[in-house]
Amino acid sequence: MYELFTQELRVVNVGLASFAENLVKAGGHAVQLAWRPPAGGDVDTGLTLASLINAPVVESANRTAFSRYLDAQPVLVDVVLAREAVPALNGERRILHAGPPIAWGQMCGPVQGAIAGAMVYEGWAASPAEAMALAAAGKVALGPAHDHGAVGPMAGIISPSMPLWVVENAAAGNRAFCNFNEGLGKVLRFGANNPAVIERLQWMGTELYEVMKAAVQRLGRLELKPIIAQALHMGDEVHNRNAAATGLLLKRLLPALLATDTERDRLRRVIEFVAGNDHFFLNLSMASCKAMLDAAAGVAGSSMVTVMARNGVNFGIQLSGTGRQWFQAPANPVDGLFFPGYGGNDAAADLGDSAITETAGLGGFAMAAAPAIVQFVGGTPADATENSRRMRNITVGTNPAFTLPALNFGPTAAGIDARLVLDSGVLPIINTGIAHREAGIGQIGAGLTTAPMECFIEAIDALAAAIATSEVTS
Amino acid sequence: MYELFTQELRVVNVGLASFAENLVKAGGHAVQLAWRPPAGGDVDTGLTLASLINAPVVESANRTAFSRYLDAQPVLVDVVLAREAVPALNGERRILHAGPPIAWGQMCGPVQGAIAGAMVYEGWAASPAEAMALAAAGKVALGPAHDHGAVGPMAGIISPSMPLWVVENAAAGNRAFCNFNEGLGKVLRFGANNPAVIERLQWMGTELYEVMKAAVQRLGRLELKPIIAQALHMGDEVHNRNAAATGLLLKRLLPALLATDTERDRLRRVIEFVAGNDHFFLNLSMASCKAMLDAAAGVAGSSMVTVMARNGVNFGIQLSGTGRQWFQAPANPVDGLFFPGYGGNDAAADLGDSAITETAGLGGFAMAAAPAIVQFVGGTPADATENSRRMRNITVGTNPAFTLPALNFGPTAAGIDARLVLDSGVLPIINTGIAHREAGIGQIGAGLTTAPMECFIEAIDALAAAIATSEVTS
Repeated sequence: MYELFTQELRVVNVGLASFAENLVKAGGHAVQLAWRPPAGGDVDTGLTLASLINAPVVESANRTAFSRYLDAQPVLVDVVLAREAVPALNGERRILHAGPPIAWGQMCGPVQGAIAGAMVYEGWAASPAEAMALAAAGKVALGPAHDHGAVGPMAGIISPSMPLWVVENAAAGNRAFCNFNEGLGKVLRFGANNPAVIERLQWMGTELYEVMKAAVQRLGRLELKPIIAQALHMGDEVHNRNAAATGLLLKRLLPALLATDTERDRLRRVIEFVAGNDHFFLNLSMASCKAMLDAAAGVAGSSMVTVMARNGVNFGIQLSGTGRQWFQAPANPVDGLFFPGYGGNDAAADLGDSAITETAGLGGFAMAAAPAIVQFVGGTPADATENSRRMRNITVGTNPAFTLPALNFGPTAAGIDARLVLDSGVLPIINTGIAHREAGIGQIGAGLTTAPMECFIEAIDALAAAIATSEVTS
Repeated sequence: MYELFTQELRVVNVGLASFAENLVKAGGHAVQLAWRPPAGGDVDTGLTLASLINAPVVESANRTAFSRYLDAQPVLVDVVLAREAVPALNGERRILHAGPPIAWGQMCGPVQGAIAGAMVYEGWAASPAEAMALAAAGKVALGPAHDHGAVGPMAGIISPSMPLWVVENAAAGNRAFCNFNEGLGKVLRFGANNPAVIERLQWMGTELYEVMKAAVQRLGRLELKPIIAQALHMGDEVHNRNAAATGLLLKRLLPALLATDTERDRLRRVIEFVAGNDHFFLNLSMASCKAMLDAAAGVAGSSMVTVMARNGVNFGIQLSGTGRQWFQAPANPVDGLFFPGYGGNDAAADLGDSAITETAGLGGFAMAAAPAIVQFVGGTPADATENSRRMRNITVGTNPAFTLPALNFGPTAAGIDARLVLDSGVLPIINTGIAHREAGIGQIGAGLTTAPMECFIEAIDALAAAIATSEVTS
């Protein structure tokens, strides 16, 4: 004890930083440990979490789920109309949306606006106003795209006559679907539904659909993982930036497009549309991620997150070990930059299925690959690299197929482990666009957000209960 | 003095590092200063250099030359046959090559092979062997492309019937030319000249030329600086890697290509050729750099380097203040990686006009932009960043139009100042391909090299002499 007081004081401080600050001011050495009690300090959840940390059943299940994710080989195999891909869209009037389930009355403006636009596109209403009245009267069924193996960016609307990319995981045979990207400006996915928006959807549902289907069929099978991997070396994180990936896709599609007997003007319009939309690949990135993560879904006992998605009000996640059950909480605000004339008060809450890219280790998790968009969402390249590193604290592992030049070609963190989110307090980071909170206006900015902790607490409780039940019955 | 010996020893060591190492071994503190005597320790050159360092005439001339380089706006304006662009190619049989002037007998294998191939392509000989005999007998005039405002990668061969890109500096009206890129594998620029190589050149000189000319004329004017700037944010340094830039170019060309009345099969072949060759943009990058640097040429008193080029034997440079005079020295060896089955003994010396990209602040100077090719030329992303930083020690300034994400969007070092090369001993770094030393084999590797110091010593001597003469006569 005497010896302790004769030595120079070197303190590791846990808790209130002011203790450490005072020591430093007085000339001492102090290190502040960035530690917070697991599970936000909630004792019950903390005990539940403790029962799952290092639990052999969870460790083993996560290994299985994670290796299925790693082994997945997403391949573009076809383009179909939504009603051909999703049985539920081939009967009653139904529209799929992004994120967890939500009733019409609770939906945010952009999602209501997008649904109304889709109803006009389908011919179920003559105007967005009429469509909104019909929807409010319950004349159209609504449900999450994720519940049907599909995803969509922002509002994420998929109606029966929309074309979908069909991406198959060649390793396990499961298929995932995503709609086509409309480009920027006033577009349905941000809630815009004016006649120009509907007209573009009609062109996409006919000419673009037909030409793209012919090209994809001509191409046979197009492996998407190598395109994503290459794009990560070309400044994309394949969520908010897809410029390189779109170029790589176009280079692959061109010979097939030119080999079809498509009439010259149709060909020109399609190629100009793709060449003019740097986000065109996003929807293929999303379908690829969905196919990779669906492969990992349904492994009893696994705490690996297989879905993160937002409906404009709530953030929802799914764990591999709890099947298709949603765990929801109010979405966190987006910390971003706004287009001139707009600010935080104009913003809808975090929205869209595109967080499937972060769930797969891309997007915000691969931000170090895309320093050029860091300024667009706020921050510096160093922040981006730090974010990509920090995510390694909460994942089952890393994905050697997706490497980041800025991390000396180190792999992306992938396979979020809900236990580690609770244990570390580190929340999954997500790149996102920001929609205006009113229908019909569109994108007003972009930024970074996180998944809310409450989803993970609920999910871990449910996983622990499921494991307990299975142990009792077995 | 007494006080000095009572203090802890802290040494700054200049010269032999072993002095510092011994101090550290004995428990002392020592910092080794990486300093070498300017001008390699040569007293005469050192005195000449001292007369130019901070000399108002040089400082002022460099400001003029550098701002002309910065202001340059390279624009693709046309595609023409070489004989239309270069008067010297429109008369006697003449072929242009890369680097400084060199006689047939002194040329390396790949350049001889490429010249022979071009003579067969022109119909001046029936076979490469016959062409070589004619060339050896002096039946064809030879000269540097740079002497005619043109550049070419590797052997850099330009013969009268080859198509050239025409890049105009919109700020000053000067024009630069470069041939078309043939792709990888057995190609003329690496000295290959078999019938398949000649056949490809014939297709490039007819169908590719005609279709590309029609597209470029349709496009009007295509600004190249924004494409280069964007490509630097997508993993290219636009010398050894042009994958993103080629994609961006293709996206701009496609609408124009499709708007021409080109027959479908011709269109398909042209688009497939461009989409299948990630180096296609290199030759436009080179013509852009040549146009930017030619704008800076001919400013009396300027020590800014406007040309660095290699003929496979010698490395040559030109300074703005000494006009079109070449300063030559034997090329340094390339430190690189070889394709399987090849090694250093198989390599030709450093070759090609493509070091015009480094002269313009791109290529090796912008290596931090392209971590993904670092492995291809050997090294780590940290080396690449360090190289880009180090070049700032020897340049007149930096180019805010070309920014590097890995340097937190800092600008590339640009405008090599020959004085600073001598003063610091830091040699300009160059990314390069490696050709087999025998004609007809092609590329066998890629790597990094430097410009040899002797060129800069000679150039500084000539610049000092020119300044002295002008001061005497004025």
